Amino acid sequence: MNQNLLYQHSTLADLTAGLFSGTMLVSELLKHGDTGIGTGDGLDGELIILNGTLYQVTSTGAVNVLQPDNQVPFATVNFANYQPETAIQEQTRDETLAQIAGRHPWQNLFYSFQLTGKFSYMKTRSVKKQSKPYPTLEQAANDQAMFEKHDVTGTMLGYYAPQLYNGVAVGGFHYHFLADDHDFGGHVLDFTVADAKLSMQAFTDLQEHFPATNPEFLNFDFAKHNDVASQIKNAEQ
Amino acid sequence: MNQNLLYQHSTLADLTAGLFSGTMLVSELLKHGDTGIGTGDGLDGELIILNGTLYQVTSTGAVNVLQPDNQVPFATVNFANYQPETAIQEQTRDETLAQIAGRHPWQNLFYSFQLTGKFSYMKTRSVKKQSKPYPTLEQAANDQAMFEKHDVTGTMLGYYAPQLYNGVAVGGFHYHFLADDHDFGGHVLDFTVADAKLSMQAFTDLQEHFPATNPEFLNFDFAKHNDVASQIKNAEQ
Repeated sequence: MNQNLLYQHSTLADLTAGLFSGTMLVSELLKHGDTGIGTGDGLDGELIILNGTLYQVTSTGAVNVLQPDNQVPFATVNFANYQPETAIQEQTRDETLAQIAGRHPWQNLFYSFQLTGKFSYMKTRSVKKQSKPYPTLEQAANDQAMFEKHDVTGTMLGYYAPQLYNGVAVGGFHYHFLADDHDFGGHVLDFTVADAKLSMQAFTDLQEHFPATNPEFLNFDFAKHNDVASQIKNAEQ
Repeated sequence: MNQNLLYQHSTLADLTAGLFSGTMLVSELLKHGDTGIGTGDGLDGELIILNGTLYQVTSTGAVNVLQPDNQVPFATVNFANYQPETAIQEQTRDETLAQIAGRHPWQNLFYSFQLTGKFSYMKTRSVKKQSKPYPTLEQAANDQAMFEKHDVTGTMLGYYAPQLYNGVAVGGFHYHFLADDHDFGGHVLDFTVADAKLSMQAFTDLQEHFPATNPEFLNFDFAKHNDVASQIKNAEQ
């Protein structure tokens, strides 16, 4: 168990290309971390892993727990070793992200943050399970479900990737949310903090794991799919 | 020891930015592989690791063995598990690289190759040790020493990185050479195979290790240094 290492299965580029089929068992993924985010098989919802349990927020808004024999096409996980940072009150998304970005000279590292507590506003989305032949991520994201909630208590889990890795991951911030009562969550589009605690964890290593036995991945021609950055911008932010 | 994992210390982007100071001990690097390539402290020469020994080809053409307490700014290493592929006779560089690229559907994976045997022509370069304040890699590469040799026997060790990772590594092929008698080598610019054996090894995982305690790396503003791809092209190819 290496708390300095961030483990990622597959890449954002694979998702933007429409490689949505699950290529890693949940049982295998959880060997590499107890905390994380991802998406479901066939782009079936937004995933958040907290304390070793993998929650799936589907496009109906339902929150399920994925089982060991489920497969995922993309996920980022780590073993939690978050260090307490500060309390945050009454702040917008932009103020909060700027504060997180400014706390450490970590702009060239991968790091993670958690915000736990009360949010006066939370806007999330969840992508819908797609059928083959799969569309691109950008097309699928146009079909997403959006949810809003006021005065919700829960955990926001996020990752920061240096811009050099945009395409491998989402360059900048990427964060999901789960309400404490497990009836609300997803990929976060906007939020306002009421009263929450910030904790952070930096990584010295990124382990990128490829779906190396998946024929669709092995044979995909990424040279014909070279607009990954704008697709990520349109699909994830 | 994971033969499916390629380990890289630092990134090509760091080198293009002029971050040339050694940030990893050779003793630590060799815990992660017995085979590899890299560059020396202060951009002092081209490195090639074979059977757990780290050889440095300096800009005078001398071949040294680096010691455990030496530091390196950048290196890519793996534990050798090369599988025999084919014999190659009388082929140019372009023919040989095309043959390597065509043997497996590995264009979206990291992989390594070795060519061992006789080369009728070999042209190499070695970068020169730089002094602070360091120039960019492109500027330093303009100051490189070049070497040519006919009828040389030795090992060419190369890596392939998917284009998505250009900047993290060198997108495409990157390969160094060492003569069997250890009196010639470097970063390969051109070659003609006389009679050599090809072997290859693919990786399911890339572990990227950052110089996470180095203040120059932590504080470098890569947003002001956004032409990494053309710098790599000019410096490495």
